[in-house]
Amino acid sequence: MPAPAKIGRIGVLTSGGDAPGMNASLRAVVLAAKHHSIDVVAFRHGYEGLLNDDWQHMNESDVLHILQYSGTIIKSARSERFREADAPAAAAQVLDKHQIDALIVIGGDGSFRGAGHLGSVWQKPIVGIPGTIDNDLYGTDATIGYATAVETAMDALDKIRDTAEAMDRVFIVEVMGRHAGFIGLSSAMAAGAERMILPELQKQKPLTVEALVKHIENVQKVRGDSSYVMVLSENQWPGGAVRLAEQLEDRLHLPCRPCLLGHIQRGGRPTASDRILATRIGVHAVNLVMAGANQVMAGIIADQPVATPLADTWQQRKGLSEEMIQIQQTLFNPVKRTAPTSVAEPQA
Amino acid sequence: MPAPAKIGRIGVLTSGGDAPGMNASLRAVVLAAKHHSIDVVAFRHGYEGLLNDDWQHMNESDVLHILQYSGTIIKSARSERFREADAPAAAAQVLDKHQIDALIVIGGDGSFRGAGHLGSVWQKPIVGIPGTIDNDLYGTDATIGYATAVETAMDALDKIRDTAEAMDRVFIVEVMGRHAGFIGLSSAMAAGAERMILPELQKQKPLTVEALVKHIENVQKVRGDSSYVMVLSENQWPGGAVRLAEQLEDRLHLPCRPCLLGHIQRGGRPTASDRILATRIGVHAVNLVMAGANQVMAGIIADQPVATPLADTWQQRKGLSEEMIQIQQTLFNPVKRTAPTSVAEPQA
Amino acid sequence: MPAPAKIGRIGVLTSGGDAPGMNASLRAVVLAAKHHSIDVVAFRHGYEGLLNDDWQHMNESDVLHILQYSGTIIKSARSERFREADAPAAAAQVLDKHQIDALIVIGGDGSFRGAGHLGSVWQKPIVGIPGTIDNDLYGTDATIGYATAVETAMDALDKIRDTAEAMDRVFIVEVMGRHAGFIGLSSAMAAGAERMILPELQKQKPLTVEALVKHIENVQKVRGDSSYVMVLSENQWPGGAVRLAEQLEDRLHLPCRPCLLGHIQRGGRPTASDRILATRIGVHAVNLVMAGANQVMAGIIADQPVATPLADTWQQRKGLSEEMIQIQQTLFNPVKRTAPTSVAEPQA
Amino acid sequence: MPAPAKIGRIGVLTSGGDAPGMNASLRAVVLAAKHHSIDVVAFRHGYEGLLNDDWQHMNESDVLHILQYSGTIIKSARSERFREADAPAAAAQVLDKHQIDALIVIGGDGSFRGAGHLGSVWQKPIVGIPGTIDNDLYGTDATIGYATAVETAMDALDKIRDTAEAMDRVFIVEVMGRHAGFIGLSSAMAAGAERMILPELQKQKPLTVEALVKHIENVQKVRGDSSYVMVLSENQWPGGAVRLAEQLEDRLHLPCRPCLLGHIQRGGRPTASDRILATRIGVHAVNLVMAGANQVMAGIIADQPVATPLADTWQQRKGLSEEMIQIQQTLFNPVKRTAPTSVAEPQA
Repeated sequence: MPAPAKIGRIGVLTSGGDAPGMNASLRAVVLAAKHHSIDVVAFRHGYEGLLNDDWQHMNESDVLHILQYSGTIIKSARSERFREADAPAAAAQVLDKHQIDALIVIGGDGSFRGAGHLGSVWQKPIVGIPGTIDNDLYGTDATIGYATAVETAMDALDKIRDTAEAMDRVFIVEVMGRHAGFIGLSSAMAAGAERMILPELQKQKPLTVEALVKHIENVQKVRGDSSYVMVLSENQWPGGAVRLAEQLEDRLHLPCRPCLLGHIQRGGRPTASDRILATRIGVHAVNLVMAGANQVMAGIIADQPVATPLADTWQQRKGLSEEMIQIQQTLFNPVKRTAPTSVAEPQA
Repeated sequence: MPAPAKIGRIGVLTSGGDAPGMNASLRAVVLAAKHHSIDVVAFRHGYEGLLNDDWQHMNESDVLHILQYSGTIIKSARSERFREADAPAAAAQVLDKHQIDALIVIGGDGSFRGAGHLGSVWQKPIVGIPGTIDNDLYGTDATIGYATAVETAMDALDKIRDTAEAMDRVFIVEVMGRHAGFIGLSSAMAAGAERMILPELQKQKPLTVEALVKHIENVQKVRGDSSYVMVLSENQWPGGAVRLAEQLEDRLHLPCRPCLLGHIQRGGRPTASDRILATRIGVHAVNLVMAGANQVMAGIIADQPVATPLADTWQQRKGLSEEMIQIQQTLFNPVKRTAPTSVAEPQA
Repeated sequence: MPAPAKIGRIGVLTSGGDAPGMNASLRAVVLAAKHHSIDVVAFRHGYEGLLNDDWQHMNESDVLHILQYSGTIIKSARSERFREADAPAAAAQVLDKHQIDALIVIGGDGSFRGAGHLGSVWQKPIVGIPGTIDNDLYGTDATIGYATAVETAMDALDKIRDTAEAMDRVFIVEVMGRHAGFIGLSSAMAAGAERMILPELQKQKPLTVEALVKHIENVQKVRGDSSYVMVLSENQWPGGAVRLAEQLEDRLHLPCRPCLLGHIQRGGRPTASDRILATRIGVHAVNLVMAGANQVMAGIIADQPVATPLADTWQQRKGLSEEMIQIQQTLFNPVKRTAPTSVAEPQA
Repeated sequence: MPAPAKIGRIGVLTSGGDAPGMNASLRAVVLAAKHHSIDVVAFRHGYEGLLNDDWQHMNESDVLHILQYSGTIIKSARSERFREADAPAAAAQVLDKHQIDALIVIGGDGSFRGAGHLGSVWQKPIVGIPGTIDNDLYGTDATIGYATAVETAMDALDKIRDTAEAMDRVFIVEVMGRHAGFIGLSSAMAAGAERMILPELQKQKPLTVEALVKHIENVQKVRGDSSYVMVLSENQWPGGAVRLAEQLEDRLHLPCRPCLLGHIQRGGRPTASDRILATRIGVHAVNLVMAGANQVMAGIIADQPVATPLADTWQQRKGLSEEMIQIQQTLFNPVKRTAPTSVAEPQA
């Protein structure tokens, strides 16, 4: 790490798909910076704001009570323009005009690629904060927003269970996570879903309609009247949950209903865990900037603040928990057992 | 009203799409009946259970703490078989075998048609309890489940607003209510949606893509960066929210996202208002049965328990509040005003 | 009603204890006024702001997305100063300086008394909006904030039930409403509380420890292992829930636990019903002002907007629903019945 | 570890104060045992049930959809009787009568001491599952129920913030955790509380009224009109939050309000994290039993299942995160800074 330069003013932006807790991390960045008498300037709408010189000062009063709200008060965007070759130079000019000594980027892998792109021209400290519901970044046990998205998906699955159980129906619930099954796996376990279809598992051994039909029939044989809830990560089935429901209905001659959770998974009050994570990582990011770190992401691993090179965060792969997959696939997989239990009945 | 016969045993069933608060009304029926030393027998899976003689005794302990859960512990179903000509006679045989003196049917208009069908053969008291999220029954200000469905839709709209506002996006959120716009209107007002597309309004004057585009552009002109959330009742647009989002995106060149709430609107903990409504109507239904009422629905109008002939509940039409439509269409309809305000600036 | 004067600018303030939905009503006032090209000036901290000339302009952008938040963005206060004899004249001077043509006061009975006090000096239209969780105002079926407070109390009672049921315990839960039992009655019914102690009932026939002990023992006899949850309105027992728990524990030799809900009942996201009520009443208040109404409260009765003289709102009494009290006292009052039921067992 | 004996039947009980997620862990125990064709017998009301031979068989259908509910379907209790010298022998007799090969105890440190007591007589495998909201057990990063309790406390703090902010008030909110500040620290950070009083900190350097008054005055000086919310762990102030509020009000001449969260912290739907934790630990406990482990607690540390000797779980101390305390004490501790920031204003 280079000898840290004196930091007088930090720039901050939120970029890419918004995630619950982005505001909490922004608040922590501002309060921590102010604690060290560092000025904070936010660029609005992510990298677009940097290119458009769309900025605002951030003071304590701007962030005081925002940690309970989702979204981002400085707005986010996906910037196509910023991928162009001349974008970094234009952005650097804006940063220099505002006398920015370091930049904190709150977002996902696309945002961190942008930070690398910018770093090719602007060589002052850039530190990333992992703000994405997908949890698909190496270098932190959990990303900011992931826990809230799981809670929202679980809450929807609980609601679906109510009606599924009342009507003895099959439901296929599509959740976010086209490249990573974290939301799918965790929400399935939390809600006790009978089945899950995740990108990581589909890559290994894609499920067939036949296998699904057989499993549903097995469950019904063991349980009698009952509901069956399946979690499907988006993009893992041709035609999605709507098509899969049709295919199952054709075969089972039972009502099978699709449910697409969509963007509600990005909103809602952040959970306590996301607010705490966002606060800790936000403070840590300011500390990293002050220590002269550059092109790293602030994260928490095994409850300790760590820094990981930005490039590693998307190039290295964080896998799903094998233990959780194993539990989910066996525990909730009732099979008609033929062998009698080996013990005598208790005597009342 | 005929002289009431002594009621010794009541039958009860839940039928059609389940609604939050069905359990609370079942509980009230059981507790009120028990208070009058009346026996209660439930038929499971709605009219199917009646045909299949699928029954269970209901005691206080069965219903003690179920009012906080959605779904229905005695299960519901849509019964095709019960529409057949010989179904009522078969059902009557089961009812008589169990010495049922009166039947309480918890459900929507389809379930009440079934009650009429049954009444052609079985002439003992049949009383309906309005359990449907759609609120489309004449004879009660609100149906059981409606308030909870509105709360769930509003909650989803709030979450969508978080992300819409962060990204300055247009969202089309599809809610339940293909024949009645109650959920659409109330959730739109509760969440401050910029626009709503409801069956009642579409019948009068269908909206065009052009009109919607113009409205969105107007709102953006007045507000600058901003989100725009539209509530769409299901079945009111060819291709639904998904198609409408594409059409708007084509014209606006802005990200427009669809969101389909689907069956989550049937689940979730019932609101206090639904639990209270369900309890009051459940008790009222038992009182009606004891008073010898037949082929009526128990309801609450202007805070008073009332009874309405079952046939009226679906033949007569309960309209949307004109006042609420009016508010929703003008209040949240920003127009660039050209006329200056007529008063001088306050002097600080 | 006098011939309405042209209204160019409205003042607005929130006063007394805050209530969920105050922001939603403020939003409706601002948007409705703007729709009619009327200017809006808010005075901050209730009548204190009026005396201190603490004001701010209210534009659409200030209120756009506040309807989902509790509290009040223009702050509230209880003003002792405003009760003094010379306060109205001082306030009138501030109102006139700002060229205010009418004032909308959002609050409870204390705030409306203040409006009467002010009206003795300042004779332009003053219209009240009922914003209080207590629901103790005549002239509207429900006050803004009441439904949310009931929901919050019910939610707490549900949580208490979880642990009470796990441990077979007696709980006494103290809720707000020292003069009116609306929150107590509704939350007790919504949560299925075994007992309630409300101001209206205590005035008629105060409960004794002996009567409570006997009821608890009866319930336990009938139900066996079970929880018992009692709702106590504040100020209705010497020493409150804490003392009552001790008294019951002394007699029952069972763990009895007090729980004081306190100010959490004032917060939380407003329910859909409160947001809709607040929006409708807010718009109605602006309409009343434009029609020249003075010293009236805007309310909703039997789903219709109405106006009631401010003095009536606290001088006349809105009673609890006798029907609901009756249900709550009989339905959830299990007694060991000696008489056998008169019907034979169903034959399976 | 001894060579594992063949396990044919497991006993299970929940003991001590109930915690959200106990049902989820019970479900996982039953489903995992059934997967291995092991019988499960539950003893009701904790160790009391063991002494009273109050038992029930547990099948898949008993636990299928209980993971979303707090409390414990097999009931819990604090057993004084089980501390007596002859209790283990009596319990062992019951266990042997039912041919129980291993016992799983879900509870906190008191329950684990009971397990040790029992182990002095009954030498078959006993495995603990950490079910307590207090998080004060060594051997697992989090106990089951802790995350939900923090969420509930945070939710209450958010609600308090709404009204505190509307009225510019000081609130002292008392949370559970008389021996450990985990709930206090985490809820304070999650809700952005201005101050916290925790057992661990009070032991080091007890706060005085003077210090608190000074801090409140400092915050008000920097922020102007504002709320101030303090989190107080129970038993950390003579007279609790009620007395502290009086003391502060005497000195500040401002309304200071106490709020006691109490037992609502034990209830509510378990968070996704608690359900997942409970499921993983429940499965792990069955695996430990099958592997012949005895007198250990199943836990998760750094995302890995681990086993810790029961005695260590209460004898060794799990400390609060110094990093979190540090953040909470500096970040939310505004001080009037005299030194100007060193950088020039950005040029717009």
